[in-house]
Amino acid sequence: MKRQLENVYEYIDGNTRDFVETLIRLVRQPSISAKGEGVKECAELVEKIMRETGLETKLIQPAEGNPLVYGEIKSKESDKTLMFYNHYDVQPPEPIEQWISGPFSGEIREGKIYGRGASDNKGNLVSRLKAVEALLKIFGELPVNVKFVVDGEEEIGSPHLKQIIEKHKELFAADAVIWEFGGTNRKGNPCLYLGLKGILSVELQVEGAVRDVHSANAPLVPNPAWRLAWALNLIKNEREEILIEGFYENVRPPLPEELQYVEKIPFDEEEWKEELGLKEFLLKRSGVEALKALLYQPSCTINGMISGYTGVGSKTIVPKTAMAKLDFRLVPNQTPSEIFRKLVNHLRNSGFKDIKITKYGSTEPVKTSITHKFVKTVAETAEKVYGKQAVIYPLSPGSGPMHLFKQVLGCPIVSVGCSHPESNTHAPNENLEIKSFIKGTMFIATLLWDFASSS
Amino acid sequence: MKRQLENVYEYIDGNTRDFVETLIRLVRQPSISAKGEGVKECAELVEKIMRETGLETKLIQPAEGNPLVYGEIKSKESDKTLMFYNHYDVQPPEPIEQWISGPFSGEIREGKIYGRGASDNKGNLVSRLKAVEALLKIFGELPVNVKFVVDGEEEIGSPHLKQIIEKHKELFAADAVIWEFGGTNRKGNPCLYLGLKGILSVELQVEGAVRDVHSANAPLVPNPAWRLAWALNLIKNEREEILIEGFYENVRPPLPEELQYVEKIPFDEEEWKEELGLKEFLLKRSGVEALKALLYQPSCTINGMISGYTGVGSKTIVPKTAMAKLDFRLVPNQTPSEIFRKLVNHLRNSGFKDIKITKYGSTEPVKTSITHKFVKTVAETAEKVYGKQAVIYPLSPGSGPMHLFKQVLGCPIVSVGCSHPESNTHAPNENLEIKSFIKGTMFIATLLWDFASSS
Repeated sequence: MKRQLENVYEYIDGNTRDFVETLIRLVRQPSISAKGEGVKECAELVEKIMRETGLETKLIQPAEGNPLVYGEIKSKESDKTLMFYNHYDVQPPEPIEQWISGPFSGEIREGKIYGRGASDNKGNLVSRLKAVEALLKIFGELPVNVKFVVDGEEEIGSPHLKQIIEKHKELFAADAVIWEFGGTNRKGNPCLYLGLKGILSVELQVEGAVRDVHSANAPLVPNPAWRLAWALNLIKNEREEILIEGFYENVRPPLPEELQYVEKIPFDEEEWKEELGLKEFLLKRSGVEALKALLYQPSCTINGMISGYTGVGSKTIVPKTAMAKLDFRLVPNQTPSEIFRKLVNHLRNSGFKDIKITKYGSTEPVKTSITHKFVKTVAETAEKVYGKQAVIYPLSPGSGPMHLFKQVLGCPIVSVGCSHPESNTHAPNENLEIKSFIKGTMFIATLLWDFASSS
Repeated sequence: MKRQLENVYEYIDGNTRDFVETLIRLVRQPSISAKGEGVKECAELVEKIMRETGLETKLIQPAEGNPLVYGEIKSKESDKTLMFYNHYDVQPPEPIEQWISGPFSGEIREGKIYGRGASDNKGNLVSRLKAVEALLKIFGELPVNVKFVVDGEEEIGSPHLKQIIEKHKELFAADAVIWEFGGTNRKGNPCLYLGLKGILSVELQVEGAVRDVHSANAPLVPNPAWRLAWALNLIKNEREEILIEGFYENVRPPLPEELQYVEKIPFDEEEWKEELGLKEFLLKRSGVEALKALLYQPSCTINGMISGYTGVGSKTIVPKTAMAKLDFRLVPNQTPSEIFRKLVNHLRNSGFKDIKITKYGSTEPVKTSITHKFVKTVAETAEKVYGKQAVIYPLSPGSGPMHLFKQVLGCPIVSVGCSHPESNTHAPNENLEIKSFIKGTMFIATLLWDFASSS
């Protein structure tokens, strides 16, 4: 067996050029879900590449929104099914002027493929498909059943994924899921993420007079900007305590077995602060305390706000409106619907009935137990392939639609991938290191093998 | 004498068409000081019109900024000097699309001259010049010395007026000043304003990380928008109490003799609320209480604020900066420099050293004593010409450079004018009713006459 996996690695190594070409082909096809740019074309290209790999595919088109690309390949050797969740849509490339080469050029420089989606998430998708291809080429078939779910709306909050999963429950049945993202840290350790924070995005809107009014009249005209500032102050205080009544009541503290792993996570604190131009982190958090806050503290962030005159110099008006956008990052077992209700009640009960609250996207927090045997399989495989200890994040500070799979399938979900720390995902000059791409492909091939034989 | 003034009124009445043409000529010359548009050309046109009227003139050009037009005409009959303060610059006309005719077209519709500056302040300026013209035509000379100071930077806070006045103290010497604005209220009563609130405009700026950061990192990255919201909350509370330490310590309460006049001011409360789309004024103020707040309460207004993402939908970032613009309206005896110092200290002492505070324009509060005999002269003349009781505002909620004249000249200053309540100053479709324009011209001619004979 060992010898045979060596053949798979050889195949992967020998076909690097071809793998890179497939990824570049996919990167060159824009697929910006926020703007609807190239999305359909990209879905068709993904389906084509999946068919070339040997998968049976179908495009699942919701009544509204972008198609999801589904693909599967059955194994004669096993009843077990491993599912991959990826997405073919990408973040908008702006600010364009900060890209060294065009965001959809797929240019290679110094061993890296540059382009929006190179890492997030087209690189990870192609890496997984190429792992399947390598196993098929060497063994003629796969050690387990494999399913690919390739979302077309991940970057806009997967608004139609829930209805698709519920409608196609059997299609989505699996014993375990590999989530879309991950890679190695700066020291080369492979990282595993066992969960995600939830998120609730809202907008607060306040209205005053029907038009901007000369500020000489300020003693008589209600000012929505002041109303907004006061309302915000009722939501969080300077000690970063979220003041919404009952906000923390469902928060579960991290389990002792999770904290053991958190304490082992390397944390490039100084490097990160320097990159962000910060002398201190918030509340002077540092070390394990900072990591614990990052993973386990729910947060409330003003993402933006606007009111009145914001140009040069001064303009003496009482503005007619004020608006703020906020997101709440939620931890197990908070839910976005609970927090939204509590926020609405909190402002109502504090005398701010005049503030209109709009709910935008939301996802629930979710995690797979750190003691699940699938976690052990993935970690052991990673350590074997990378030759370094695996770093396990019991929770990730990010968010995504993982809970939809968890709720419907009830199976373990672990996120791993082939990115490296300078991949610049969601930023200009996104890229994927070819070496990481190829290593990640070997890792996935090995994982399919090891998953087949795991108890 | 009475008979002779009748001749002046006849002249004014008979030359209405010519007066209107002069005003339209001036309105058609844009003079937007905020953008530097047409300012020099307008100064030259004003000087030309003043010379045509019979004044000796000069353009006073400060080292930087727009020229001030000075004009005078000496009287052989009196040593007394009445000075008029006006301005030839106008507010920007935006939003352009809300104008029925072009903002610099000077179109006449239904007895009104439409255009930016028609009322504020070109109409008032031409009205005063035409009063002088009428007296000269009928009597061959003026009953008192007259001076015109026509500012070119009033709408941008008269940044160079102080240095001009200080440099030309003798040129600006006068026994009394008629300020730029005023008119009749909805019931046709002429209104007198004896003072102005002061103003201090500032900008608060907060910096966070060197770039917007993914909000998943909110537990570690300081958020300038939150800092700003908390700082604002330390400046004013929901009960509209300004919390800056020592803010109120120099505030002088209204004098009993002033309150007698305030209680007589008609206040179109319901009409105003309806126009602004408000159910209630701030703090449910109404009646004399509302008027007293409007005239005597200092205020702190957020004019505008901006941070992070303000487009459609949500964007999950911790913004890198946040900014708010505020103005403080000050009452006697507060000063802008005192309040600026107190604001800076207040934020420093409250743990907000990170907030950068920039000072924009400022003017000091100022008032002429309600018992001054010049006030009596102006009020009696107004009542005689308009046939209605004069309404006296001991203070106006607006601001302007009146204190510069008061400090240097030490003479009484009263603001009256020829506007009517629907003049839309600082708004689209600014206009001047021709009837008000002509009546205001008769008022100023009579006032020059009465001022000569007043003790």
